[in-house]
Amino acid sequence: MVKDYNFKVIKPPFFEIGPKAYLWGDKMLELAKVIDEAATKLDVDVIVTPQYTDIPLLAQNTKRIHVYAQHMDALEPGRGLGSVLPEAVKAAGAEGVMLNHAEKKLDLETLAATIKRADQLGLATIVCTDTLEEIKAVAALEPNIIVAEPTALIGTGQTSDMDYVLDTIAAVKAINPEIMVLQGAGISNGQDVYNVIAAGAEATGSTSGIIKAADPAAMVWEMLTALREAYDNRNSK
Amino acid sequence: MVKDYNFKVIKPPFFEIGPKAYLWGDKMLELAKVIDEAATKLDVDVIVTPQYTDIPLLAQNTKRIHVYAQHMDALEPGRGLGSVLPEAVKAAGAEGVMLNHAEKKLDLETLAATIKRADQLGLATIVCTDTLEEIKAVAALEPNIIVAEPTALIGTGQTSDMDYVLDTIAAVKAINPEIMVLQGAGISNGQDVYNVIAAGAEATGSTSGIIKAADPAAMVWEMLTALREAYDNRNSK
Amino acid sequence: MVKDYNFKVIKPPFFEIGPKAYLWGDKMLELAKVIDEAATKLDVDVIVTPQYTDIPLLAQNTKRIHVYAQHMDALEPGRGLGSVLPEAVKAAGAEGVMLNHAEKKLDLETLAATIKRADQLGLATIVCTDTLEEIKAVAALEPNIIVAEPTALIGTGQTSDMDYVLDTIAAVKAINPEIMVLQGAGISNGQDVYNVIAAGAEATGSTSGIIKAADPAAMVWEMLTALREAYDNRNSK
Amino acid sequence: MVKDYNFKVIKPPFFEIGPKAYLWGDKMLELAKVIDEAATKLDVDVIVTPQYTDIPLLAQNTKRIHVYAQHMDALEPGRGLGSVLPEAVKAAGAEGVMLNHAEKKLDLETLAATIKRADQLGLATIVCTDTLEEIKAVAALEPNIIVAEPTALIGTGQTSDMDYVLDTIAAVKAINPEIMVLQGAGISNGQDVYNVIAAGAEATGSTSGIIKAADPAAMVWEMLTALREAYDNRNSK
Repeated sequence: MVKDYNFKVIKPPFFEIGPKAYLWGDKMLELAKVIDEAATKLDVDVIVTPQYTDIPLLAQNTKRIHVYAQHMDALEPGRGLGSVLPEAVKAAGAEGVMLNHAEKKLDLETLAATIKRADQLGLATIVCTDTLEEIKAVAALEPNIIVAEPTALIGTGQTSDMDYVLDTIAAVKAINPEIMVLQGAGISNGQDVYNVIAAGAEATGSTSGIIKAADPAAMVWEMLTALREAYDNRNSK
Repeated sequence: MVKDYNFKVIKPPFFEIGPKAYLWGDKMLELAKVIDEAATKLDVDVIVTPQYTDIPLLAQNTKRIHVYAQHMDALEPGRGLGSVLPEAVKAAGAEGVMLNHAEKKLDLETLAATIKRADQLGLATIVCTDTLEEIKAVAALEPNIIVAEPTALIGTGQTSDMDYVLDTIAAVKAINPEIMVLQGAGISNGQDVYNVIAAGAEATGSTSGIIKAADPAAMVWEMLTALREAYDNRNSK
Repeated sequence: MVKDYNFKVIKPPFFEIGPKAYLWGDKMLELAKVIDEAATKLDVDVIVTPQYTDIPLLAQNTKRIHVYAQHMDALEPGRGLGSVLPEAVKAAGAEGVMLNHAEKKLDLETLAATIKRADQLGLATIVCTDTLEEIKAVAALEPNIIVAEPTALIGTGQTSDMDYVLDTIAAVKAINPEIMVLQGAGISNGQDVYNVIAAGAEATGSTSGIIKAADPAAMVWEMLTALREAYDNRNSK
Repeated sequence: MVKDYNFKVIKPPFFEIGPKAYLWGDKMLELAKVIDEAATKLDVDVIVTPQYTDIPLLAQNTKRIHVYAQHMDALEPGRGLGSVLPEAVKAAGAEGVMLNHAEKKLDLETLAATIKRADQLGLATIVCTDTLEEIKAVAALEPNIIVAEPTALIGTGQTSDMDYVLDTIAAVKAINPEIMVLQGAGISNGQDVYNVIAAGAEATGSTSGIIKAADPAAMVWEMLTALREAYDNRNSK
C-alpha cells in the first residue's frame, strides 16, 4: 500500500483528540487553537475530530492540527438526504475521517467501501477496533491508521495493558507495516501518555481525559508534552 | 401549540429546496445565492437543507433563505461520536431541521424526542411523511411543518393527486391548525408549483426538479415566481 | 375500524407475558403450559410472545393462550434473508405480533406498513408506546392493542402512576374506541395487577416480574388471579 | 483453529440452499424432503436455511440435511425482545447459522461476537462476504465456512469468474486452511454447479436458481448430481 495521498502526512508520535458531542462552536474553536499552538511548538501531529458543522470553523482557523470528520458515508453524489457526503467533508476542509468508532459501528462491506471512497478523494482513514481479531480484520482493509481500543475501557480512565499494546502493534505490522497504530482507551493524564508511548506505541489519544479535566487547555499541553518527551527518550536510548 | 420560537418565522407561501447529496461547497453556495436573491425579490420564504458541513457557509453568506439541517440526532451534549448534535447545528447557523425523510427514517420514539430537542433549542422542525395515516401520527407529535410526500413519487416527476393534497391538509389542520403542510413529490417546473398552490397548498418544494434542470438557477426563478403568483391569484379571488 | 379478523378474539381483562430472550425451548413450554392452565381456569386471555423458533412449540402444545411473535418484518415473500416473514409467522401458528417494543423500535413508515401486512393476513397487532404523544401517534395507525409503557420503567418494578394510566386510555379511546390499551411497566406481583385493573385498565402484563420470581409458575397464578378478581370487583360495583 | 464442534461435520463437496423469504411452512418442508432424499442418495452435505419459525419443522422432519438459521443475534439470555437468541436457535434444532448476508449485514464487532457465541454453543458459522478484502477480513474472525459471493451478482444468474473463485479460495486458505469456502452468486443450473466445482471450489449454492426453476425439485436433483459428479471427476484425475 503506497497510496499517494494529498492530505498532510502524519508521522509518529501523534495524538487524536475526539470532542464527540461534548464540544461545539466557539468552545470547540477555543480548545482547537490551544491544541494548534501546542502541536506547533512541540512539533507533534494531532488529529481533531469536531462535529461535522464545525469542520470549516476548525479548518479555516488552525494551521498545524489535522481536522478529520467523526464519520462519513460511502455514498456517491446524488440522493441520500441526511447523509455525510465524502466530497462535502473534503470540500469543508477535512483531511481525513474516523470510521467504525464504538459509538458508530459500520458493517464490514460498508467499512471497506468507505475506506475506498476516502482513498479516491485523498482523505485519510483512522479506523477504530476492539479485539485483536477485529484489528486483524480491519488491517486487511488497508486504512491509514488503526485505533486499538478495548471498547470496555472507553471513558473509564483505565488504560490498556501493555501486552495488548504490543500484540496489536505486532499484529497490524505483520499484515501491513505501513498502517500506523494508535492506542486508545483510558488516557487520563500526561503520565498515561508517557507510559503507553514509552512501551512502544506510535500514537495515543484522549477524549474524556481532556474534556473533563479541570483545565482542558492545561491538560492538552500536559499530554502533548508527555507525547513528545516519551517518544524522544525512547528513541535516544 | 404556541411555541415561542426564536427562529425566523415562515409564512405561506413557502418552498423547500433539498440539495441532499447532489450539491456541496462552492456550487451549493452559488445556487443558494440565486435562491436568496429570488426569495428576497419575490418575498417568499425558502428553506434550504445543505450538507451539515455547508450549514455555516450558507448561514454566513445568505440573508433571506432559511437554512435547515437535513437531519439531527436527539442526543444531549456528551458522548456520541459520529452524531449530529442539536446544539452544534444551532451554533452553526441553522434555523431548523428536517426529520424523517424517506432516506433517513426515524423510529417513532426518536422522532418525538428529536422534535422536543428542537423545541428546546428554538430550532424549527419539518417532518416528512408518506400516507395519510402517517401524517395523522406525525401531527400528534406537533412539529412546525409536515411534508406530505408519497414516497413512491419521490424523484419521479409525477405529482401527488389533488385529493391527496386536500385530504392531507385537512387531516393535519383537524389535529392542529398551527402545523403548516408542505406538498412534496414530483414538482418538475413552475406549472407544477402553480397547480399545487392553486389547489390550496401552503407550500411545496423540489430537489431533482431543480438540480437536474438544464439551468438550475433559471428553474429556481421559475418555480418561486409561480409560487408567488399562484398564491396571490388564489387569495385575490 | 371493524376488521374481520380470523384470529381468536381477545377481550378484557387480558394479560401479556413476554419471555423476551429469557426463556426458550423446554423451559418456555413448561411455563406456557402453566399459563395455559391458569388462563383456562380463570377464563382470561393471555398473550405469550416466545422466541420465533418457539412459536410452533407453543402453538401446538397449548389451547387457551394466544401466541404472538415478538416482532415481524413488513416484507412480502421473496428476497430478504434474515427477515421474519409475516406469512411464516402465521403458518407457524402465531395469532398476532408485537411491534415497536423499546428493544425493537420501528420507524413510523415501517410500523404503519407492518400493521397493514398483519391486517392482510389476519394477524393481530399489539404495539408498544411510551409517551402520551407517541400513544396518540400510534392510535392513528389503528393497531388492535396499544401497550402504554413508560420506557424508563421497563424492568424496574416501579409501576406507572394512575394519571398516566387514565390519560393514556382516554387518549386512545378518543381517537378510536375499538383499540384496546394494555398498561405495562413495573408489574411485580398480584397486588400491582390488582391496582392497575382496579384503576380502570383493560389489561396489563409482566416479563421480569414473572421470570425473575422465586417461583414463576406460582407468580403466573397470583397475577392472573388478581387480574380476574380486580376486573370482576370493578364491574360488580 | 481446532474447534471441537458437536454439530454434524460437513465435508466437501457441499451445497447451500437459502429459501430466504420465498418459502415457508408446508412448501418449505416439501422441498426440504426432496433435498434430504437427494443429499442422502448422492452422499453430499447440504445446508438449508429456513425462516426461524421453520427450523423445528425441518429439524424434526429431515435426516441428512443441515438446518442452519438465516441469522442470529449475539445477545446472552435475558432482555432483548425481538431478537434471535443463539440458545433458542440451538434448542430448535439448528446446527449452525448464516451471518452477514448482503441482506443482513453486521458490523465487524457484532460479527466477531456472534461467531464467538456460535462457537460457545457448538453452532457452525457460515459467513457471507463480497470482495477479496472483505474475505480476508472475515477469515481473521475464524468462521467455519466463508461464502465468497460478489454482491452485485446475487440473483442475476451470472456466475463469478474463475479468477475470483481461485483467488478467494487461496486467500482464505493462506490465512487459515481449515476454513471452507463456498462460491455463491449466479448458480442457475447443474452446468453452473459443475463448472465451479470443476474449477476447484469446495462448495457452492443457490437460491433463486432453485426457487424460480420451473420444477424446483428437479433442479435440486440436477444441481446436487452435478455437485457429486464434478467433485468425483476432479478428484479421479
